[in-house]
Amino acid sequence: VKKIAILVAGGSGLRMGTEIPKQFLEISGKPILMHTILAFYNYDHEMDIILVLPESHQKFWGELCSRFSFTLKHHIASGGETRFHSVLNGLKLIKDSGIVFIHDGVRPFVNKETLDKCFETAMKFGNAIPVLPVADSLRKKEAGKTISVDRSLYYSVQTPQTFQTKQIMDAFRQKYDADFTDDAAVAEKAGFQIFMVEGHRENIKITNTTDLIIAEAILKTNNPEV
Amino acid sequence: VKKIAILVAGGSGLRMGTEIPKQFLEISGKPILMHTILAFYNYDHEMDIILVLPESHQKFWGELCSRFSFTLKHHIASGGETRFHSVLNGLKLIKDSGIVFIHDGVRPFVNKETLDKCFETAMKFGNAIPVLPVADSLRKKEAGKTISVDRSLYYSVQTPQTFQTKQIMDAFRQKYDADFTDDAAVAEKAGFQIFMVEGHRENIKITNTTDLIIAEAILKTNNPEV
Repeated sequence: VKKIAILVAGGSGLRMGTEIPKQFLEISGKPILMHTILAFYNYDHEMDIILVLPESHQKFWGELCSRFSFTLKHHIASGGETRFHSVLNGLKLIKDSGIVFIHDGVRPFVNKETLDKCFETAMKFGNAIPVLPVADSLRKKEAGKTISVDRSLYYSVQTPQTFQTKQIMDAFRQKYDADFTDDAAVAEKAGFQIFMVEGHRENIKITNTTDLIIAEAILKTNNPEV
Repeated sequence: VKKIAILVAGGSGLRMGTEIPKQFLEISGKPILMHTILAFYNYDHEMDIILVLPESHQKFWGELCSRFSFTLKHHIASGGETRFHSVLNGLKLIKDSGIVFIHDGVRPFVNKETLDKCFETAMKFGNAIPVLPVADSLRKKEAGKTISVDRSLYYSVQTPQTFQTKQIMDAFRQKYDADFTDDAAVAEKAGFQIFMVEGHRENIKITNTTDLIIAEAILKTNNPEV
């Protein structure tokens, strides 16, 4: 079965308070996005890798690849106005049917166990998303104030959100809706039941400078020789 | 105004897959709980510190304090069946009126900015809880399945949950309810509106081995000389 990865790297980096979009920041001397691409390449050398980048970042990415002698084959799709539009542009580059892993470009630590679970569950049931219990208490905005909610009723959703190509392509034929907060929400709106697998704690999304410090620590622990 | 900290360390450690309850595990050569106590002591040397520990851990804690020559003055209250009962036991040791910070023993990185914000807001409005936006997508259990929810409607709640002593003591006169998932939920049920302040990302709750790795990294970055 063909495996395809769509790596979404649409972030503008403004949240980090840096000039460089966060997916290009380095951990252990290499841009985050290259670590993420390598995670998928190492999982399956035959995987098709589609990187979704804002057009304004594509030249810079090319220069980074040269500077780091990063020659792993990947396709580039252009980022859109929202995650939905970015993923849609990535889906358009898919040629074969199979299993597609839609993954945040800034989650470089996805591991083999999670990828295996997502793959197997998506093969069987059409899709799979990795989730974890929610660690902190939660409050919800409601009627102009916030209220306590029971966190044990919630799951924290990571990526890769994983789908049979036919299912996700059917789902993305829908018109854009502001409720499409992630890829599973798109599939769900199209009528597909979503299946959860257990994620892993290291699979963090790097969105601020503390996350960068955390990322260095995880990388050094996973690869003591680095 | 008198400041009081109630540090709740009820965890049995089973979740970590270790024999030692997680609040006793060391980061940079010192048990997590001592880091947490120091964070409050360093914020205000005059603060009353009340540590809530299961009875079965109190002897071990005393031995740890001897072994680490940890002599900062603190009172010990006994842990109860739930967080509500543990906090209630801590509240019973309060002698003065003032502002009480109810804090997870396994969040050693709370900083001065967050403590200041909590203190000032609680002085003005009766309470304050530090929150952050939710970083991952969320799903909610409903009617035997899970559904996508809009994470922008939610806040992730850290500690210290901070209260005027009179307000929190009034709230804890209620009978225990399974909906009391945190201290704010107790105050809310008693009719008090809850006020949010901005938390900080480093103020993590150490609940598993990955968190320990992350904690070491945060500590080293905050204190490069350690």
